[in-house]
Amino acid sequence: MQQTIQISTHNQNGLYDITQAVQKIVNQCNVETGIVNVYAQGATAAIMIQENWDESVQTDVINLLRKLIPSGVWEHDKQDGNGDAHLKAGIVGPGETIPVINGKMGLSTWQNIFFCEFDGPRQLRTIAVTCVSSK
Amino acid sequence: MQQTIQISTHNQNGLYDITQAVQKIVNQCNVETGIVNVYAQGATAAIMIQENWDESVQTDVINLLRKLIPSGVWEHDKQDGNGDAHLKAGIVGPGETIPVINGKMGLSTWQNIFFCEFDGPRQLRTIAVTCVSSK
Amino acid sequence: MQQTIQISTHNQNGLYDITQAVQKIVNQCNVETGIVNVYAQGATAAIMIQENWDESVQTDVINLLRKLIPSGVWEHDKQDGNGDAHLKAGIVGPGETIPVINGKMGLSTWQNIFFCEFDGPRQLRTIAVTCVSSK
Repeated sequence: MQQTIQISTHNQNGLYDITQAVQKIVNQCNVETGIVNVYAQGATAAIMIQENWDESVQTDVINLLRKLIPSGVWEHDKQDGNGDAHLKAGIVGPGETIPVINGKMGLSTWQNIFFCEFDGPRQLRTIAVTCVSSK
Repeated sequence: MQQTIQISTHNQNGLYDITQAVQKIVNQCNVETGIVNVYAQGATAAIMIQENWDESVQTDVINLLRKLIPSGVWEHDKQDGNGDAHLKAGIVGPGETIPVINGKMGLSTWQNIFFCEFDGPRQLRTIAVTCVSSK
Repeated sequence: MQQTIQISTHNQNGLYDITQAVQKIVNQCNVETGIVNVYAQGATAAIMIQENWDESVQTDVINLLRKLIPSGVWEHDKQDGNGDAHLKAGIVGPGETIPVINGKMGLSTWQNIFFCEFDGPRQLRTIAVTCVSSK
């Protein structure tokens, strides 16, 4: 089974927790044992598994990527001005594949699924979620 | 279904767009809804999803990785002289798993699939492409 | 089929080769053609495909990540003192999906599967391994 999640983003760079939306799709999949692929359909966005105890790690992720991949110094900036967003997306990657164990995602206590916006705000961002049974 | 793509690379560092070759395999898979795994078989290579409007982003990717992971300063250089290539491959990662939606890859307009060469040129690089149905 | 691998880690940062343990599970899966997903259940750990000729590349990985993501300078350090571990885990990512070809993992000669510990030592780290047939 496959469904999409649609979200709006409100900042140029931001992490958005989509764990519950993904788990809801997994619940409907009737996959007991298998995998779920979570994929951001956008070349300036990504998926990251990260802690969500509070907002500190999300802030740290944005600051780290800003430091490693500064804006305004790339070839691609001559065209769109968003070279840094493409590079961040490429390094973090658009997808994660997570085990499904007894019908639930096999995330540890502190693992949450985040949509990473690197070129926002955007009215519509789409994430494809695909469940596959291992049987 | 599973097939391999074979390419030659012409530079020490370079990104090669393999989107059409992967889509051709997906077309032959008869998977309507599912996932496709694209995997570079080489410890100094990787797969990255990235824009392909022109060559600017590919150039930026190479320059970013050269800055973050300089050559010639690693333990492994004493053996092969390609420590940076292994590190780039490890950080970017050898594979991406992409949703298949209505028989086509669920890439957005600006998402293309690139084979990343970090230790070329090489006469033969092999990418394994595996389709899995979600049903 | 799905099984878990459990390991202890002995250093704060370290790479542990789990290739043989994963292959053993793949052997039991009876998947001839497909994929295997290897997923670290922990928000301060990751999976990286990397060379294992000797320990040089592992050492280089740890030193690279320490340089790019120093410890002690993050918002999250006010809570747990392990902000760098979360960031390393997020950038490397918790999982890799590897093709299964003729019943064996489609790794190249120099590709091994490493569990990356970024907040050790830990008595128990768990990796979920899920085989999926492409048929």
